[in-house]
Order: sequence, then structure tokens, then C-alpha cells
Amino acid sequence: MSAGFELDTRLAGDTLVVGDLALCRVLLMRDCRYPWLVLVPRQPGKVEVADLAEDERARLWREVDAVGGALRAVAPCDKLNIGALGNIVRQLHVHVVARREGDAAWPGPVWGFGKAEAYAESEAEQLVVAIRRQLAI
Amino acid sequence: MSAGFELDTRLAGDTLVVGDLALCRVLLMRDCRYPWLVLVPRQPGKVEVADLAEDERARLWREVDAVGGALRAVAPCDKLNIGALGNIVRQLHVHVVARREGDAAWPGPVWGFGKAEAYAESEAEQLVVAIRRQLAI
Repeated sequence: MSAGFELDTRLAGDTLVVGDLALCRVLLMRDCRYPWLVLVPRQPGKVEVADLAEDERARLWREVDAVGGALRAVAPCDKLNIGALGNIVRQLHVHVVARREGDAAWPGPVWGFGKAEAYAESEAEQLVVAIRRQLAI
Repeated sequence: MSAGFELDTRLAGDTLVVGDLALCRVLLMRDCRYPWLVLVPRQPGKVEVADLAEDERARLWREVDAVGGALRAVAPCDKLNIGALGNIVRQLHVHVVARREGDAAWPGPVWGFGKAEAYAESEAEQLVVAIRRQLAI
């Protein structure tokens, strides 16, 4: 299902690759302010969730569930935030963010808030490995 | 499935009721800056999407699809924004917002941005009626 898929260059620059689920590529945002994953269906030309076939939409949300569970397991949080915005990067993608009371943007949304702060390299790698293990990918 | 369900008082104050789908109550945000609907599963005590049973989660997202389609039909837009945040109002709810390039918060998120602007009463009512017609509720 991924023929012709190329990850948007801005998403690619802002993230580390965690791995691939059946439909989506899972990415870790390079921003240590919040444990923040992004799911990108590996299909070219999709912008809105409604651009996916019905069974793929269902799969997308099941993968969002799985990723949310994995994120919670490695980064306990007070609230998961799920968002499909795409006002800037049009390639269809869904954010799953582990929010903690008092985090940098709390209680507002993370999107467009301040500037990303870099992880220590080993910290991001450890997080990626832990999420891969949770997702068994 | 709605025994014991009560709409959060803040959500109730900020919205007009559009109607009920099988799982969710559909609300129109009292904010004329963006055509903005909110879906609230009519079940007590739910905070995260993962708090819903698996079949209800699937139903929630199908209803989000339906509501997005209805919103697009009555309020053409450049991008739908879908969000489940809940950092302030903890009762599980999903936003579906019709975004237009150059709208008040564009390209940022609508949540927490500025102050709601009231609809003319007849305008909100017309929108509610048009959305009900689209959703056949």
C-alpha cells in the first residue's frame, strides 16, 4: 500500500523514525518538551482522513489507539492529546502527544507553541527503542 | 448507552445542541470565527478515547467522519481539523473544525486562541438546521 509514498520533508526533518505499522509510519517529534508521536499513513496524496478508504480509516484509528497506549506505557501522562490538523504540512498525519499538567504549553495545545527543544541524543534513542518494544515493531 | 450521562457544564455553556447520533451528542461551538462542531460520547465517566470499548471507539471515529462530511457540505473549507485534547474539559469530546486559509487562528490551532465571537442568533440556528439535515438527525 506504500507505493509512491514519500514522507513530507518538513515532517522528516522534525522527527525520528520509530517504525512502520500496517498502515502508518510512526515518528517521534524531536521535541523533548512533550513525548510526541506522529502517525503518517504510507499512501501518497492523502490530506484528509476522509481521503482514506473506510477500512483504512478504521485501521488508522486503531493504530492511533495502539500508539497512544504505547506512549502512555513509556511516558506516563495526565492526558493524551490526539490531533489531525494539517494546516501547514498537508500530508495526512495524526499527532499523539503525552501531556502532563504544567508542561510547557499546558493546558493549551502543543501545535505552534514556542520552539522545539532538542532531546539529548541518547534520550531520544531510548524513547524510540522503548516505543518500538511496546508496539512490537 | 446514555444512562447517567450529563454534558459537562462548560461544554454546555459554550455550545448549541445539534442533535444525537448513535453514540455522540453533536454540538455547535458558539464561535462564528470557525464552523466548529464537538462530538461527546453519551457515556458517563469517559476521559480518553481508550476509555471507550473497542466497538464504540470505531463508532466514535465513524461519527467524526460523518460530522466532518456534514460540516464540509455546509461550510466549505480548506482543511478539517480534528482534535481530542481534553486538557481543560476532561469529559471525552472530539472537535471537528472547518478551517479556511486566513481565518482568525490560521495556520495555528483554534484551541485557546483569542476569544469566541458570537454568531448572530439566526445564523447559528441556520447552521444547526443545515447540519441536522446533512446528518439526518
